[in-house]
Amino acid sequence: MPSKYPPMGWNSWDCYGAAVTEETVRKNAVYMAEHLKEFGWEYIVVDIQWARPSAVDHSYEAFAGLTMDEFGRLTPALNRFPSAAGGAGFAPLAEYIHSLGLKFGIHIMRGMPRMAAHRHLPIEGSSYFCHTAADPHSICMWNPDMYGLKCELPEARAYYDSIFRLYAGWGVDFVKCDDIAREYPHCRKEIEVISEACRACGREMVLSLSPGPAPLEEAEHLKRYADMWRITDDFWDEWRLLKGMFEREEKWCIHAGPDHWPDADMLPIGALRQCEDPEERTHFTQAEQRTMMTLWCMARSPLMIGGELPKTDAFTLRLLTNAPLLAIDKESWCAHPVCASDTACCWIAPRKDGKGCYAAVFNLADEEQILSFPADALEAGCASATELWSGQPADGSLSATLPPHDAAVWQITF
Amino acid sequence: MPSKYPPMGWNSWDCYGAAVTEETVRKNAVYMAEHLKEFGWEYIVVDIQWARPSAVDHSYEAFAGLTMDEFGRLTPALNRFPSAAGGAGFAPLAEYIHSLGLKFGIHIMRGMPRMAAHRHLPIEGSSYFCHTAADPHSICMWNPDMYGLKCELPEARAYYDSIFRLYAGWGVDFVKCDDIAREYPHCRKEIEVISEACRACGREMVLSLSPGPAPLEEAEHLKRYADMWRITDDFWDEWRLLKGMFEREEKWCIHAGPDHWPDADMLPIGALRQCEDPEERTHFTQAEQRTMMTLWCMARSPLMIGGELPKTDAFTLRLLTNAPLLAIDKESWCAHPVCASDTACCWIAPRKDGKGCYAAVFNLADEEQILSFPADALEAGCASATELWSGQPADGSLSATLPPHDAAVWQITF
Amino acid sequence: MPSKYPPMGWNSWDCYGAAVTEETVRKNAVYMAEHLKEFGWEYIVVDIQWARPSAVDHSYEAFAGLTMDEFGRLTPALNRFPSAAGGAGFAPLAEYIHSLGLKFGIHIMRGMPRMAAHRHLPIEGSSYFCHTAADPHSICMWNPDMYGLKCELPEARAYYDSIFRLYAGWGVDFVKCDDIAREYPHCRKEIEVISEACRACGREMVLSLSPGPAPLEEAEHLKRYADMWRITDDFWDEWRLLKGMFEREEKWCIHAGPDHWPDADMLPIGALRQCEDPEERTHFTQAEQRTMMTLWCMARSPLMIGGELPKTDAFTLRLLTNAPLLAIDKESWCAHPVCASDTACCWIAPRKDGKGCYAAVFNLADEEQILSFPADALEAGCASATELWSGQPADGSLSATLPPHDAAVWQITF
Amino acid sequence: MPSKYPPMGWNSWDCYGAAVTEETVRKNAVYMAEHLKEFGWEYIVVDIQWARPSAVDHSYEAFAGLTMDEFGRLTPALNRFPSAAGGAGFAPLAEYIHSLGLKFGIHIMRGMPRMAAHRHLPIEGSSYFCHTAADPHSICMWNPDMYGLKCELPEARAYYDSIFRLYAGWGVDFVKCDDIAREYPHCRKEIEVISEACRACGREMVLSLSPGPAPLEEAEHLKRYADMWRITDDFWDEWRLLKGMFEREEKWCIHAGPDHWPDADMLPIGALRQCEDPEERTHFTQAEQRTMMTLWCMARSPLMIGGELPKTDAFTLRLLTNAPLLAIDKESWCAHPVCASDTACCWIAPRKDGKGCYAAVFNLADEEQILSFPADALEAGCASATELWSGQPADGSLSATLPPHDAAVWQITF
Repeated sequence: MPSKYPPMGWNSWDCYGAAVTEETVRKNAVYMAEHLKEFGWEYIVVDIQWARPSAVDHSYEAFAGLTMDEFGRLTPALNRFPSAAGGAGFAPLAEYIHSLGLKFGIHIMRGMPRMAAHRHLPIEGSSYFCHTAADPHSICMWNPDMYGLKCELPEARAYYDSIFRLYAGWGVDFVKCDDIAREYPHCRKEIEVISEACRACGREMVLSLSPGPAPLEEAEHLKRYADMWRITDDFWDEWRLLKGMFEREEKWCIHAGPDHWPDADMLPIGALRQCEDPEERTHFTQAEQRTMMTLWCMARSPLMIGGELPKTDAFTLRLLTNAPLLAIDKESWCAHPVCASDTACCWIAPRKDGKGCYAAVFNLADEEQILSFPADALEAGCASATELWSGQPADGSLSATLPPHDAAVWQITF
Repeated sequence: MPSKYPPMGWNSWDCYGAAVTEETVRKNAVYMAEHLKEFGWEYIVVDIQWARPSAVDHSYEAFAGLTMDEFGRLTPALNRFPSAAGGAGFAPLAEYIHSLGLKFGIHIMRGMPRMAAHRHLPIEGSSYFCHTAADPHSICMWNPDMYGLKCELPEARAYYDSIFRLYAGWGVDFVKCDDIAREYPHCRKEIEVISEACRACGREMVLSLSPGPAPLEEAEHLKRYADMWRITDDFWDEWRLLKGMFEREEKWCIHAGPDHWPDADMLPIGALRQCEDPEERTHFTQAEQRTMMTLWCMARSPLMIGGELPKTDAFTLRLLTNAPLLAIDKESWCAHPVCASDTACCWIAPRKDGKGCYAAVFNLADEEQILSFPADALEAGCASATELWSGQPADGSLSATLPPHDAAVWQITF
Repeated sequence: MPSKYPPMGWNSWDCYGAAVTEETVRKNAVYMAEHLKEFGWEYIVVDIQWARPSAVDHSYEAFAGLTMDEFGRLTPALNRFPSAAGGAGFAPLAEYIHSLGLKFGIHIMRGMPRMAAHRHLPIEGSSYFCHTAADPHSICMWNPDMYGLKCELPEARAYYDSIFRLYAGWGVDFVKCDDIAREYPHCRKEIEVISEACRACGREMVLSLSPGPAPLEEAEHLKRYADMWRITDDFWDEWRLLKGMFEREEKWCIHAGPDHWPDADMLPIGALRQCEDPEERTHFTQAEQRTMMTLWCMARSPLMIGGELPKTDAFTLRLLTNAPLLAIDKESWCAHPVCASDTACCWIAPRKDGKGCYAAVFNLADEEQILSFPADALEAGCASATELWSGQPADGSLSATLPPHDAAVWQITF
Repeated sequence: MPSKYPPMGWNSWDCYGAAVTEETVRKNAVYMAEHLKEFGWEYIVVDIQWARPSAVDHSYEAFAGLTMDEFGRLTPALNRFPSAAGGAGFAPLAEYIHSLGLKFGIHIMRGMPRMAAHRHLPIEGSSYFCHTAADPHSICMWNPDMYGLKCELPEARAYYDSIFRLYAGWGVDFVKCDDIAREYPHCRKEIEVISEACRACGREMVLSLSPGPAPLEEAEHLKRYADMWRITDDFWDEWRLLKGMFEREEKWCIHAGPDHWPDADMLPIGALRQCEDPEERTHFTQAEQRTMMTLWCMARSPLMIGGELPKTDAFTLRLLTNAPLLAIDKESWCAHPVCASDTACCWIAPRKDGKGCYAAVFNLADEEQILSFPADALEAGCASATELWSGQPADGSLSATLPPHDAAVWQITF
C-alpha cells in the first residue's frame, strides 16, 4: 500500500458537500499545484454524491436518480462533471490532475446502488447479476443510495472487482470508502473484500475507510486491510470536537506507521461550507488551528484540507506551509502523550534519526496558561530547542505562555 | 519520587506467602548482594502479614491477633522477626540490608487494624483517636485485618503520617501498599493521603500500589501519586496469565516513564511456594521465562523476583544477569507493540541515545513458528542487529525460529 | 375494538408458510365451519407473502417481484389466489369465508413495497407520492420487501389510510401487522398511525401486532393501540419454547382484558409444515399439548390454530373442542401464577361470576410428578372441583399424578 | 407462618429512629389497644438499635458499645429499656404488650455484633465460637455494628438458633430482619438459615425482611422463606416516593397471598421524627394519605403505622379506622392495575366471595382530574357501587372528581 507517510491533500466535502463540480475540483487543484505541492500536499479527492445530478448542498435525497452504467456502476453526473461525457468517467479529470503533478482520489460508498439490484443488472466481467450480490438488509444509516453486498458470495467480489477495474482505468490514486470503518463486526468481511479488490486492480491506490470512530479493538484488522481509517465521526470546526481528539489520539497513537494511519479527519480551515454561504470561514481561532495542526502532526494523522483552496488567506497559508512542523510527520515515530488532564496535555515524539525529539504542550483550558513540558519526560536531556510556530529558540526551559486553546511545539536536540 | 528507572528487587510473597521470616529475608539479601546487585537488583521487600504471629503459609486468618503498638500501628511479629524486640521494629533488619548495599521495603494494607478502632486507641503524634479515623464500612474483600480510613477527615492523615513516621525511623526505602490500586473510585482520596504522607515523612521511599488491575482511565492520577502500580491481579507461573499480559502492556505502555511505572507484578521464577513445598519450582518453561523477561524489559515494568534466591539455578541466574537485556529498561523509551495477534506479537523500543532501537518478536502460539519483525516498522532502517538471548548477530533479516511461547529481541543500530 | 374475548381462529403460517393458496384457505375454512365453529373458533387468516407469485415454502426472496396496484398497494398473486382476478383482491375469498359464518383475516408488513417508492407511485386518495412517504432507512431485519414509512408526515397516514380503505372494501375482519410489535421505540409512531387508520377505515377489524417479544414496559401503549400483540418470537413445537412461555405469561398476565390480549402465538398442533412435507405432524407430545392449551386458556391468550385443519386427528380435535376448558377464556379474569419453579408451576383464575375459580398445575420436569395446588392459595376455600382434561371430580385435594410436561386444571366451586 | 392476612401494626422507626424507649413503646401500645385494635391493628414493633445505650436520633455510631450477653447476643440497653434489667431482656415488655391483647415485635440485623467475633465469645447451646461463625468480609453498607455469618457452616445455624431461642423465651411474635432483603445473591443462604431458625424456635413468629427493594426475580425464594419482604428502600412522606410505589406494586401484585406479602413499608402518617422535633407531622397531604391507604389495601401490603400513636389527630384516626377500606385486605384477592400512566392509574381487586369487586382510581397528576374506571375492565358488570372514602353510592358511572394525588375506591356488587 502506497502510504509510507501520512497522506496529505484536499477533499471537497467541507467546502462543497455533496455538490462539488468539476470546475471546482480543477481550480482547487491548480491552487495546490502552485502553492502547496512543494510542501508535500498532493491528493485531490472528490467526495460523496458525484453520481447524483440533483445535489446542491451537504444533504442527501431519498430515492434520487443516480447515474450509472449498464453494470450498475456509478458514473459522474454529467451536469456536474461534463468531461465524463461519452462514457469517459473520471478519466479526463484524473488526467488533468496528474498533469499538475498531483494525485486524484474519489469517494465511494460500500455496496452497490439499490436500483442496480432492483433492476437485476449484470455484473461487468462476470456471469453474475447485481440482485444476487446485494444484501437487501444491509443499508447505510445515513445515506439512502446503496445496498451492502453479501460478501461471503463470489458475486460480491465480482462486483467490487468490476468497480475497482473501472477506477484503475480512470486513473484513480486514492479511494475513500464510506459507511464502513465503524461498521464492525458486520462489515469485517466487506472491508476485506474491498481491500483485496483494491490491491488486485492493477493500479496502486490508497484505501481510506470512513466514517469513524473505528473500534480500537479492531486496530490490527484495520492495519492489515487499509492505509488509513477514521478514528472519529465527522470532524468540524468546533472546539469541543478538537478537544475530544486528544483522548482519541492517545488511544490510537501506538497504531500509526507506514501504510496504516489512524485518521483524525479533515482540517476544517479556511473557506468552508461554500455551497451554503460563500462568506463562510472556519470557526476555529488561530490558536485552535495551531493546536489542531500540532496534534495531527505529532500523532501523524493524514492531513486533508477541507477549505476551498483559492480562497486561502495569509494565516491559513502559513499554517499549511510550516515546513519544520510538517516534517514531524516524516521525521518522528513512536509519539505518545506524557501527561493529560482536562486543561493541558503534553506529547513527545522521538526523531527517527536519533538526533533529538519533538515535544508539544497544549493549553486545553479556556484561559491563558503558562505550560511547561515536564523535564523528567525528556529522559535523554535537551541540549537545545526551537519552538516551531514562533521559530524562536527556547531559553533554558520548555515553557510557554499560551492563550486559550493554543499550542507550542519544540524541536529538541540532545 | 526516587524511581528514575523501573525498580528491581526481590519480594517474599511468591516463595513464602504470609509466612516470611527474618532469617529468610537475610539469606535472600545476602544472595542478592553477592550475585545480583551488580546487575542493578537492589530492593528486598517483606510482603504481607509480618504482624501476624500465627502465619504459616499463603492464607489469611479471620479475627487473628496482630502485633501492634499502643497507637494501633502494626509491628513485626517477634516470633518471626526477633530483631524487632524491644520496640525496634524493622530498624535492625533494614540496617542489615543497607549494610549489604541494598534497599529495604515492606508491605502494608491501606487503613488500620480493626482492633485499633474497636479499642479506641490514640493516634501517635496527635490528639485524635483511631475509632474516629476508621471507616467501619471500608474493608478489604480478601483480607480480614483492616479498616480503611475516612480520608476526608484530618484524623486519617494523622494516622497515615504516624505510620510513615515510624517507617522512616525504621529506614524503609520502599512501601508496597495493598488493597488500593484497583479500588477506584472509592479509594482515590486514600491514595492521595497515603502518597502525601509518604512524601512528607522525611525519607525517600518508592510507593508501589497493589493489587491490580488498576483502571486505565486513572493513569494520570496514578502517575501523579505513585511510583508504580499493578496493572494486573496477582501474576503467577501460568502461560494463560503471561499471554494475557501482552494486552495489558499494550494499553499501559505509553504511561511508563521516570517516577511512574506500570507494574506487571513479580517474576514467578526459580523456587516458588516454599512454605507449601520446598521442592516447588516455577511452572514456566525456559521459553516462557525469556518471553516474560523480554516483555517486562521492553515495556519497562518494575522487575521483582519472586523465587527464593539462595535456590537459584544456573538457568535462572543467567536470566537475571543478562546485562544487555536488562539495559533496555534504562536505555530505551516510547516502546509499543507494532503488531499483535492471538499467535504472535512484535514490540519496538527506540533508544534514547538515537543510535538505534530494540525490536522484539514473541511466539504466542503453542507450536514452533518462524517470526519476522516487520521491516516497514523500522522506519529508520537497520544497519546491524544482535539478538540478545543468543548473543548472535542477525544476518540480513530480523527473523527467528521460535519454539512455542519463546521470544527473540534484537538490539539494532541504524 | 372488536375483541371482547381473546380471538380464536386459524392461521396459514404453520402449515403453509409463505406458499398458502386460495384453495387451501377455502378447505380449512370449510373444516372450521363444520367442526370447530360451534366451539368459538371463527377467524381464517391468510399469512405473509400473498402478493409474491414465486412463493413455494417458508422462505423469502430478495428483490422478488410483488403484485401491486397502481398506488403501490399489494394485491393477491393471481397464480395463487385466482378469485382476485380483475382487481377483485381478496373480496371474493372474504365473501366466501363470511358465507360459512366465519371471519376473514390477512397478514401485512408495516410500510410499503420498496418498488412503490423507487417507482415514485402516487398514493391513492391523496395528492402524495409513495417516495416521499417511504423511509429508505426503515427496513425489516428478516424480510426484504418493504420500507417503513415516515410516520411524522401526513403522507404516511395517507398511505396507511389507502390500504385500510382497500381492506375494508375487501371485507377484511382481522389484520395481523408484522415487523412492528418488538420494534420499539422506533416504530411507536408507526403503531399509532396504523391503529388510527385501522379504526377509521369504516369496518371493524381486530388489529394484531407481530412479531414478539413486545417490550413489557410498553404494555400501556400496546393496550391502547392494538387488540393483541405477540409476547414472544415465533412459537413452534419445541418444549424449550413452551416451557419459556411460563415466564412470559407471568409477566404479561395482568395486562390481559377486553380489547387488549397478550398473544403467546399460534398453536403448532396437528399437521404442520405441509409445504415441506405432507406427512409432518406436531412434535409436541399429547401432554405438552394439554399444557399449552391450559396455559393459553388460563392466561387468556388468543388461540390461533397452526395445523392444517382437514388433516386434524381425533386427539387434536378433542383438544380443540374441550368446551369447559375453552370456557376459561370467557368466564375467568385476573389470572396469575401462585408459585413457579423450574420444575412446576401453578396458576389461579377467579371466575367472574364469583361462583368459584380455576386452578391449574403444570409439570415442567422431565419425569412424572405428583403435584398439588397449594391449599393456602385458595383463600375462599373449595367446596367441589372437577378436573377438566379427565372430567373427573377431585376427591379431597387438588392433586394429580402428572406425566412429564403434562397439566391438570380444576374448575372449583366455593 | 402466621400471616394469613397482611400484618397490621405500629413500628417505632418513623417517629423515634434509633432512640425508641420502653416508655414510648408502652404508651403507643396503650393507644393501639384503646383505639385501633378493634380495626385489626395488633403488632407493636421495636425497631433498630435497642442495644445501643447512646442512641438519641435516627443516626448510627461507628464502634459504639452495644449491650450483649456472654454469648454475643444483643440485649436491650438498660438505660432505655429498664424492665430488661436482671437479664430479663424484652420479656417484661412483651408480657405487657400481650396483656393489652396485642403482639410484640423486634428488629434485628442479620449477623452478630462485630465485637462478639473479635472477643471470640462462645455460642450459646453449642460448642462453637462466634469468631468462626462470623464472616469478616460480610458487613452492612449502612450500619457499622455487625458481621454477617458464614452460613454454609453449622456455626452460623448454631448462632441463629441461639438468638431465636432467646427471642422465643422473651415472647416475641414478629421479627423484622434487616440488611438482608435486597442483598441477593450473597445473602440467599443467610435468609434460608434465619428462616429455618425462626420456624424451629418453638414460637410462631412473623418473619419480615428489610430493606428493599428485594429483587423481583427472587419472588419465589422470598415467598418460601419469609412472611413479608420490603419491595422498596425506606419509604417516607414524599410524593415522589409514593408515586413510585405504583410501578413497584404493579410488578409485585401477583405475589401477594397468605404467608407471603410484598411490603411497601411503613405508613409515614401522623406525628413523625419526634426525636428530632416534637412538632413534626407528616408532609403528605390528606389526598396523598388516602392514595397511600388505598394502594396499600388494594395491593394487600402489610400496614405498619409510622407515626406516634398518642398524638394521632382526628383525620389520621379516621384514615386508620375506615373499616370498609381495611376490609379489602381480607376480602379481596388477585388484584392488579388495569391501566397506568404517568398521570393516572386504575386497580381492580375481585372479592373472594364472588359478590363483587373493588375498583380504584388514582390521580397521579399535580392538578385536579375527573377520572373514570374503564367500564370494559368490569367484565362481570356493576349492579351497584359505593365509594369507600366518601361512603357515597355511585350514580351510574365509576367516575370521580379528584384533587391532585387523591384516590377514589368503589366497592362494587355485580
